[in-house]
Amino acid sequence: MPVASPVLSLNDKCSAIDGVIRAIASLEDNDVTNAGLGSNLNLNGCVECDASLMDGQSLNWGAVGALHGIKNPIKAAECVLTGQTRQQPCGLIAPNFLVGEGARSYALSNGCVASELLTERSQQSYNRYKRLLDSETSDESLNAKHKRLDTVGAICVDWAGNVAAGASSGGIHLKPSGRIGQASMMGCGVWAQNCIAVTTTGTGEYLTKTMFAKECANHLLNTSDGNNLNALNKAFRYGFTDSPLLQSIARENRLGGVLALYHDKDSTHTELLWGHSTHSMCIGYMGSHSKPKAFISQLPTDSKPGLYFKVEAIND
Amino acid sequence: MPVASPVLSLNDKCSAIDGVIRAIASLEDNDVTNAGLGSNLNLNGCVECDASLMDGQSLNWGAVGALHGIKNPIKAAECVLTGQTRQQPCGLIAPNFLVGEGARSYALSNGCVASELLTERSQQSYNRYKRLLDSETSDESLNAKHKRLDTVGAICVDWAGNVAAGASSGGIHLKPSGRIGQASMMGCGVWAQNCIAVTTTGTGEYLTKTMFAKECANHLLNTSDGNNLNALNKAFRYGFTDSPLLQSIARENRLGGVLALYHDKDSTHTELLWGHSTHSMCIGYMGSHSKPKAFISQLPTDSKPGLYFKVEAIND
Repeated sequence: MPVASPVLSLNDKCSAIDGVIRAIASLEDNDVTNAGLGSNLNLNGCVECDASLMDGQSLNWGAVGALHGIKNPIKAAECVLTGQTRQQPCGLIAPNFLVGEGARSYALSNGCVASELLTERSQQSYNRYKRLLDSETSDESLNAKHKRLDTVGAICVDWAGNVAAGASSGGIHLKPSGRIGQASMMGCGVWAQNCIAVTTTGTGEYLTKTMFAKECANHLLNTSDGNNLNALNKAFRYGFTDSPLLQSIARENRLGGVLALYHDKDSTHTELLWGHSTHSMCIGYMGSHSKPKAFISQLPTDSKPGLYFKVEAIND
Repeated sequence: MPVASPVLSLNDKCSAIDGVIRAIASLEDNDVTNAGLGSNLNLNGCVECDASLMDGQSLNWGAVGALHGIKNPIKAAECVLTGQTRQQPCGLIAPNFLVGEGARSYALSNGCVASELLTERSQQSYNRYKRLLDSETSDESLNAKHKRLDTVGAICVDWAGNVAAGASSGGIHLKPSGRIGQASMMGCGVWAQNCIAVTTTGTGEYLTKTMFAKECANHLLNTSDGNNLNALNKAFRYGFTDSPLLQSIARENRLGGVLALYHDKDSTHTELLWGHSTHSMCIGYMGSHSKPKAFISQLPTDSKPGLYFKVEAIND
């Protein structure tokens, strides 16, 4: 069950990007999600995290991947993002994506807090799944029964009408060391531009292949009739479940979700949209003048995940 | 001066993907290019390489990033690519992107050859640039005067009409450890689909932000009038030099290049296209029935790199 929450619309002069960072950091600190503390362990029994951020105003993007030992991966992505606004010596170019040990050193030297992110529960899960994998007679699928996709994402519009998007993930159970998922790939995990913010969740490799966040943003930025729900529906069908890029993937494995925000600065019309081909998706949201709400969106009974998807929207 | 060569069209039943791997491996083994042996050193004085491959038939993509100590990074990317065609135990999902130590272990366990890629020349360059960087009084720009962008790329069409694309790069001089450039980012360094193969070169961060390979492929796959040169021209202008995604980058720094191949299976019409906003770009190509050719494409005299770009094509 992918988790994508909360959407914050802030009225305290906090920027959209700060809203996204705060929301994701709080989800990372919660050991229930597969991000930050309590993340899935990789094949070597270690936590390696992916995270990225995009600022819809500057259109800058910053990401970290296969990062271990940092309490809040999203704050490491923030360091990479803000580093791009600083003048570099000798005309060098600031990085927008750092991985592994290099990412860890960079984060620590920019004030990020070190932390082991293992929990008793994640260690127990690892032990159980590793035994399954090692027992040659077992053909039980971790994929179907045990996979925790609970990547977290957040999108936000601020008082000035600017948008931002972020994502953070511990990746799939027993992934090989060094594996990078969509949460830290440009255009795959997040997109924020003009009036649109997007964050995705699901099977990382398929969201990467389809560059799904950018695909959704493209459809939403280029609607001919202003019908965002229709645009997201098209993006999901042609850009994911029916995408030629997933031709070699069985349809029931084409599991993804998207949370998107449309905000028109002029009319101040705001729309929250989501879609998923997973069985369910958790969504939380709040506005400046409303209490936080949370719910679980589910596919209709008897509709098979991957073979079916749904898109919905709330207007404000 | 970006190097993008050679384009091979093979008549010996070698697949397009194998053609690309052979071409790039040979360029990696040559210490003149910034790929494999002789790559630029990072800030810590180490070689870390990026490489990726895309198969236009299966539409699979495989990449490695921040990889050290492997003789041919493109062969490590091949391991990641071919791994996706093998059934995984317990329904696990094969990775499409591996970085750092994890990528190195994966490559070694799949038969890649270990090798330190330092050369006397790359060490001397590092020493010189590091002294420049460390001398606080110097405001000399490594960027303008010393930057070696010489990423290598290759695109290929085979006897069956299938296409493939690959790229390999040591990244920019004195990059921070763990920095990932376009050569290993989905849709940024390479694209291959149906009748189109694309590889890009230039400043990695800007090619990543604009997802430039995919952008070029989109324009070439969706020409309304079949004019590929016109399509690549539009892709370069709207997708790179005039892209809103590069709004914060000075125009003279918007340095990129692209090499593209269009092959119509039915008419067997083949077109080789290239474009660059860098001062120059090396191009090599060969066909089944022609000798290899190589040349340096240059901007017109007095036209400033980044402010100007050109696109050209050869039809066969």
